Amino acid sequence: MLFGNTESEISMVQSVHRAVQILRELASGGPRLGVTELADRLGVAKPTVHALLRTLEIEGLVGQDRDSSKYQLGPNLVQLGNAYLDTHELRTRSLTWSDALANRTKEAVWVGVLTGDHVLIVHHAFRPEGAVQILEVGASIPWNTCALGKAVVASSPPDVRERLLAGELAVLTGASMTDRKALADQLEEVLKAGYALEDQESAIGDAGIASPVFDRSGEVAGAIGIVGPVERMLGESTRRELAVAVRETARNLSRDLGAPRRAAYAPGA
Amino acid sequence: MLFGNTESEISMVQSVHRAVQILRELASGGPRLGVTELADRLGVAKPTVHALLRTLEIEGLVGQDRDSSKYQLGPNLVQLGNAYLDTHELRTRSLTWSDALANRTKEAVWVGVLTGDHVLIVHHAFRPEGAVQILEVGASIPWNTCALGKAVVASSPPDVRERLLAGELAVLTGASMTDRKALADQLEEVLKAGYALEDQESAIGDAGIASPVFDRSGEVAGAIGIVGPVERMLGESTRRELAVAVRETARNLSRDLGAPRRAAYAPGA
Repeated sequence: MLFGNTESEISMVQSVHRAVQILRELASGGPRLGVTELADRLGVAKPTVHALLRTLEIEGLVGQDRDSSKYQLGPNLVQLGNAYLDTHELRTRSLTWSDALANRTKEAVWVGVLTGDHVLIVHHAFRPEGAVQILEVGASIPWNTCALGKAVVASSPPDVRERLLAGELAVLTGASMTDRKALADQLEEVLKAGYALEDQESAIGDAGIASPVFDRSGEVAGAIGIVGPVERMLGESTRRELAVAVRETARNLSRDLGAPRRAAYAPGA
Repeated sequence: MLFGNTESEISMVQSVHRAVQILRELASGGPRLGVTELADRLGVAKPTVHALLRTLEIEGLVGQDRDSSKYQLGPNLVQLGNAYLDTHELRTRSLTWSDALANRTKEAVWVGVLTGDHVLIVHHAFRPEGAVQILEVGASIPWNTCALGKAVVASSPPDVRERLLAGELAVLTGASMTDRKALADQLEEVLKAGYALEDQESAIGDAGIASPVFDRSGEVAGAIGIVGPVERMLGESTRRELAVAVRETARNLSRDLGAPRRAAYAPGA
């Protein structure tokens, strides 16, 4: 805009970018970091880092450890993260569908969205019967190693799909797919079948079946699927039955989100 | 510091503060907001809001809705919130203690920390037997309406306690405590007994029993407690038995965190 002050905008953008970099470093680089460590990692002067940390502390996004004077992430991040989940339409609409799918398949249900080249789990309905289960909401899984990721990417616009296929392909187990051609073929299969499979590609012993979910614009919004022991999931006849349940649920959830009958990149579109 | 550029630091602080304000508005003010609405709410020029939003979008902290062009919170907030929980020492140390307490009392266990005048639930161990339960991690409860809050505030340094007692006291039910004198007396009782009670002060039908947890500096780090139907929790003999279990668990968890035998504001200190 004509009246925008370009120079001050650049410094504004830089300040926010650096503040977020600090949060990322604290999220990934061990539980606590001091001002000097952060200044080194960001390549920014210490007084700058200090001013940013104080601001983030006032906002409750970082906290200072009483003993060591080092900084760690702050509790208000949990509240913001929860607010994201609470206002996320795919997630809120998926709650009852997930419970129904968990009851029908007797397996745990995950709902995920693509963020960068990872799938973020935004909802997890526990397996109806069974031992202690760890809630996976907030977990982030490389797209190429899970059924949710393959379901979303297969249904994404061609430019997104090509970019992800050409990008880094994570290896979590010996079965993780890194052959770009084989992976591209699998994505074609996903479009035809309406569901994606994972066979121990993110964790030994675990399998997954997932289908894409579309929103009212007709574009893919995420995916819903089941995860469980490979022995229970991928036997020929069971797999088919489970896949039908997953695909039907994804279709119902899509309609619930206002998706047109034929979504933009849906099978057969 | 002598070489700090004060003017640029002020603008840096202001930029970060405004960026966080945007996140807060999106968290509280309905799911989606446009640039104009945000500019009005913050009292900031539209080009400034627009530049901040674009930066936050690149960082994955906000997202733009395809249909409406309005903005909403972004998925990376969930990852940052999870990183906070994963690196939170009280939380990680409380996992096994919470499971043990849930098994011993047959009730749900919550672990909370004080943030401002609310208690943030950082861990929730489900009741071992029972119907569907909703995970409360990330929920935020006014301190005066829950046992966790009373346990923490009773054990906080006098200046914190006085400030909170003088501040706003939330009303969630007819039983929420707003009489400052009665609440102060209750906090004294908490110090003597080593545990706090809630009798339907945050939700009709629910009761809670919680004890403070201390860290290696000897200061209160949070609280651990159980929640359940008032009928099961507050009968004279049951209550006493449950309170013993909660208090013992809090003491063990405190020792696990490195707390000295007599914590700074602990009962009898």
